[in-house]
Amino acid sequence: MFPKVHAGMEMDMERNGDRTKTMGNCEKRIPIFAQKMKTYPGLLCKTIWKVGHDDPRRVIHAFKVGLSLTLVSLLYLMEPLFKGIGQNAIWAVMTVVVVLEFTAGATLCKGLNRGFGTLLAGSLAFVFEYIATETGPVFRAIFIGAAVFLIGSAATYLRFFPYIKKNYDYGVVIFLLTFNLITVSSYRVDNVLKIAHDRFFTIAIGCGVCLLMSLLIFPNWSGEELHNSTVLKLEGLAKSIEACVNEYFVDPSIEETEKQSSEDPIYEGYKAVLDSKSKDEALALYASWEPRHSRYCHRFPWQRYVKLGGVLRHFGYKVVALHGCLRTEIPTPQSVRTLFKDPCNRLAREISKVLMELANSLRSHRHCSPEILSDHLHEALQDLNNAIKSQPRLFLGSNKNQATNMLALAAAQASQKHEKAPGVSLSSVKTDSSALREWKSRRTTDSKEAERKVLRPQLSKIAITSLEFSEALPFAAFASLLVEMVAKLDNIIEEVEELGRAACYKEYHPCDEVVVTCDRKKINVSQGHVHTDGAD
Amino acid sequence: MFPKVHAGMEMDMERNGDRTKTMGNCEKRIPIFAQKMKTYPGLLCKTIWKVGHDDPRRVIHAFKVGLSLTLVSLLYLMEPLFKGIGQNAIWAVMTVVVVLEFTAGATLCKGLNRGFGTLLAGSLAFVFEYIATETGPVFRAIFIGAAVFLIGSAATYLRFFPYIKKNYDYGVVIFLLTFNLITVSSYRVDNVLKIAHDRFFTIAIGCGVCLLMSLLIFPNWSGEELHNSTVLKLEGLAKSIEACVNEYFVDPSIEETEKQSSEDPIYEGYKAVLDSKSKDEALALYASWEPRHSRYCHRFPWQRYVKLGGVLRHFGYKVVALHGCLRTEIPTPQSVRTLFKDPCNRLAREISKVLMELANSLRSHRHCSPEILSDHLHEALQDLNNAIKSQPRLFLGSNKNQATNMLALAAAQASQKHEKAPGVSLSSVKTDSSALREWKSRRTTDSKEAERKVLRPQLSKIAITSLEFSEALPFAAFASLLVEMVAKLDNIIEEVEELGRAACYKEYHPCDEVVVTCDRKKINVSQGHVHTDGAD
Repeated sequence: MFPKVHAGMEMDMERNGDRTKTMGNCEKRIPIFAQKMKTYPGLLCKTIWKVGHDDPRRVIHAFKVGLSLTLVSLLYLMEPLFKGIGQNAIWAVMTVVVVLEFTAGATLCKGLNRGFGTLLAGSLAFVFEYIATETGPVFRAIFIGAAVFLIGSAATYLRFFPYIKKNYDYGVVIFLLTFNLITVSSYRVDNVLKIAHDRFFTIAIGCGVCLLMSLLIFPNWSGEELHNSTVLKLEGLAKSIEACVNEYFVDPSIEETEKQSSEDPIYEGYKAVLDSKSKDEALALYASWEPRHSRYCHRFPWQRYVKLGGVLRHFGYKVVALHGCLRTEIPTPQSVRTLFKDPCNRLAREISKVLMELANSLRSHRHCSPEILSDHLHEALQDLNNAIKSQPRLFLGSNKNQATNMLALAAAQASQKHEKAPGVSLSSVKTDSSALREWKSRRTTDSKEAERKVLRPQLSKIAITSLEFSEALPFAAFASLLVEMVAKLDNIIEEVEELGRAACYKEYHPCDEVVVTCDRKKINVSQGHVHTDGAD
Repeated sequence: MFPKVHAGMEMDMERNGDRTKTMGNCEKRIPIFAQKMKTYPGLLCKTIWKVGHDDPRRVIHAFKVGLSLTLVSLLYLMEPLFKGIGQNAIWAVMTVVVVLEFTAGATLCKGLNRGFGTLLAGSLAFVFEYIATETGPVFRAIFIGAAVFLIGSAATYLRFFPYIKKNYDYGVVIFLLTFNLITVSSYRVDNVLKIAHDRFFTIAIGCGVCLLMSLLIFPNWSGEELHNSTVLKLEGLAKSIEACVNEYFVDPSIEETEKQSSEDPIYEGYKAVLDSKSKDEALALYASWEPRHSRYCHRFPWQRYVKLGGVLRHFGYKVVALHGCLRTEIPTPQSVRTLFKDPCNRLAREISKVLMELANSLRSHRHCSPEILSDHLHEALQDLNNAIKSQPRLFLGSNKNQATNMLALAAAQASQKHEKAPGVSLSSVKTDSSALREWKSRRTTDSKEAERKVLRPQLSKIAITSLEFSEALPFAAFASLLVEMVAKLDNIIEEVEELGRAACYKEYHPCDEVVVTCDRKKINVSQGHVHTDGAD
C-alpha cells in the first residue's frame, strides 16, 4: 500500500473508491503507479507544508514530543541517573509516547488515568499475591490464571458502561495491563512489590515530564479550542445565511445542479456546525480535566459550551433546510424571487448581524449588547410581512392562467422598480405532464434492469413537476424558515448569555462598540488560521 | 470521585453540571452523598444488567478477552512454553490487552498496525545501531539522543496528516514506542537484534491470539454493524416522518412546549441519523480492514455505506425541519390543520412506506422492488395538490377578516366531513401587538441586568406573533418540506441501488413479497435488541 497524502476525509473516501475500481484491470495500474510516483514528492512536500501552515501549533507540539522523549531518554543514557532507576527507565519513555497529547486537557486526562490505573492495579495485584503466597506452584498457576480471566472479563465488561467509556476508558486499559503484568510476573519473580513500585515510579516520572511539557511550555488548552470553535461556528452560520439568501435571489441557473459541492460557501459555513457533536464532546471532556487557566473567576463552563453547541446544531439544521430551498424541485419563478428580494435580503442581513454580534461578544469575553435584537430586525420582519401581504393573489394556485397573469403583472411591477434586474422569464414554470405520461406508458412494458437504471432517478421529480404545485409553496417555505430562524435566535442568545454568566464575562459597555468594529476587521483577515494560539 | 453509572451521554452531561453546582455548598453534600450511597448498589446492578441486555455480544466479548489473556498467560506460567520464550512473554499479554477490540475489523486494524509498526521500528533502529556501532560512548549517547528527538518529532508531525491519522495513527504510535525502546536499550544492552526479534515474536503471538479470537470465535463484524445501523436509520426516518405528521394534525396543545424532549418518538427516530457521521466513518474504516465474510460476491462496499449515510443525514435534516414546523411561532389554526390532515397523512404514509421497503430490501440483501415509487405515492401527491388548490383563498393574508371568514367556512366544511374532529377554535390566531407595544415602551426606560433577563427571551417571539403573518405560511412550509422529501427519495433509492449493485444483492422477485411481510413482523418484535448477532 502506497500512502497517499491529502487533506479532507471525503475526498479520501472517493479516491479510495476509485482505487478499488482500478484494482480490477491490472494492465492499467502500472502507468498509473508510475505517474503517481512522479507527482508524489511534490504532493508530499505540499502536504507537509500545509499541515504546519494550517496550524503552526502542530510544529511546536512535534518538537515538544521530541524534546520530552530526549529528556526521559537521559534517565537511561546518563550514568548517574541510570544507577538510580535502572532498566525500568524504559517505562518512562513508553509513558511519554503514549500520554503526551496535543492539548493540556487530553494529556492530563491520559496521564491521570494512567497513574491511577497503575496504582489501583498494583494494589489489587499485591492483594492477590498475598493470598496466593503460601501455596504450591500448581495451585498458584491455576489461581493466577483464574484471576487473570476474571479481572480481564470484568474490566472489559466495565468498559462498555457509558460513563466509564467516556471518562475512564484509558484508565481501565492501563489497569488491566498493569494488573496482568504484575500478577503474571509474580509467578517467576519473587519481589513483586519492587516491580509494582518501579513501574509506578517510572510512569510517574514519564507523566511528570508530559504534564510539565503540556502545561508550561506553549500549552494548548482544549477549553480555548472549544471557545474558538464556538465563535467560528457562529460566524460560519452568519455567513451561510447571508450567502444562502443572496444565492436564492441572484442566480436562477443554479437550481438544477443537484450535488452538494464542497466548494460552496454556504455549505462551508454550516458544515462545521452539523458534525460538531463528537468533536465538541471530546473537547469538553478534556476541558473538564484542565485547571483554571484564564484570568476569569470560575472554572471553565464546558457543559455550557456543549449545550450551546447543541442549540447551534439545531439552528444549523434550519440553515440546511434553507439551503435546500435553493435546490427545490418546484421552480420558483424569477418574478416571485425579484418581488421579495429586498425584504428577505434585509432580514437575512439582520439575522447574521445578530449572530456576528454574538460571535464578537464571545470572542472578546464580554456580554452581548442588550440592543442585540434591534429595531432593525423588527423592521425587517415587518417589511417581509408587508411584502407578502401586498401580493395576496400570489399564493393562489388553483387557476393557473390567472396566477400566471398575476405573476406577469407582478413581474412588470418588479422590473419597473428594479431596473437592473435581469429579464424575467415566465417559462421557468415547467409542466412535465408529458414526461410523466411517457414514464407511465413505458412502465407498463416489462422493466429490465438496464432500463430501470435510466428511468428510476427521475421518477419522483417528474411526478412533482408534473403536478403544477403552487409556485408560491417553496417561497413560502423559504420565508417561513427565515422567520423561524428569527424565533430561534432567542435560544442562541439565551445560551450565550448563560455561558457569559457562568464564565463571568465582563459587562457590555456601549463604548466597546468601536473596539468591536476593529475586532471584526482583524478577524476577517486572520480567518485562514482556524485556531489562534492558545496561550491566554 | 464517585463513579456514577448511567446510560446516555447527554443526561450524563447535565448531571455533571448539577454536580458542579452542588460542589459549591458543602453542608448539603453529605446527606446527598449518603443518599447516593443507599441507591448506589441497586443502580449499579441495574446498569450491569442493562449493558449486557442491550447487546449480549458485550458479555461474549468480555469472556473472549478473559480467555485470550489466560491463554497468553500460559506462555509465562507453563514451564515448557516459558523456556522457549522467556521473560518477554509479558509482551504478548500486553498486546492482547491493547489489541483485542470489540469488532473483528478494529482488532485487525490495530493488530496489523502494531505488527507493521514494530517491524518498521525494529528495522530502523537496527540501521541506527549499525551506524553508531563503532563509536565512543559519549558520541553514541548524543547520537541516540538526537535520533530519538528527530524521529519523535517527525513521527508526531506525521500523525497530524489526515490520511495517516485516519488509517495508521496507532501504527505510528507503536512505531515510535518500539523505536525508542530498542534504540535507548541498545545503549546498555549488546544484543539489540535479540530485543527486536523477541519483541516482534511475542507481539506476533499476541496478535495471533487476538485475531484467532476475533475472527473465529463469535466474530462481530464492523461491516455487519454498519449494515444493521443503516437499516435502523432508514426505519427510524420512516417512523419519524409518520409520527411527525401525526403529531402536527392531532395535538393542538403541544405547540407551546419549546424544549426538545428526549422521550419524543420523532426525535428518537432521527437522532441516530443526525450524529452518525463519526460512528459511520469509524465502522467503515474498520470494515475496510475486514476480510470478505459473507457469501456475496464482492468485498464489502464500505464506501457505499458511508455515501448512503451522508444522503440519509441530509434527508434527516429535512425531517428536523419538518419537526420544527410543529413548534413554530406563527400558529397554524386548527381549522387549517384539519383541512389538510388526510392528504398530508397519506403522503407521509407513502414516504415512510418507501423508506421501509428500502430498509427491508437492505435487510434481506436484495434489490428493492422496481415498483417502489408506486402510483400510490403519486396519487398522494396529487391529493395534496388538489387539497391546496381547492382552498385558494387560504394563502391570502392581506385582509384578516376576509381570511378568517374563509377559514370559518373551511372549518365548517371540514367538521362536516370529519365528525370526530374536535371543536375548531379560531381563537388560536393570536395577535400580540399589545405585548409588543408594552415591550417597546418598557425598553425606552433604562434597562437593567435583572430586567433584561426577564425580557430578552421573548422579544423575537413577540415580534413574530405581533406581525400577524399569513397563517398559511407555516403550513406552506410544512407541505413544501413533505413534497421536497418525495424528491429526495430519489437520491436515497439511487444510493441503495448502487449499494445493492456493489454488494451483488440478489434480484427482486415479486414472490418475495410474502416473505417481506413476514420479515417485517419479526423485525418489529426484536426491535429491542439494537444489533442482531453478527455471524452471517
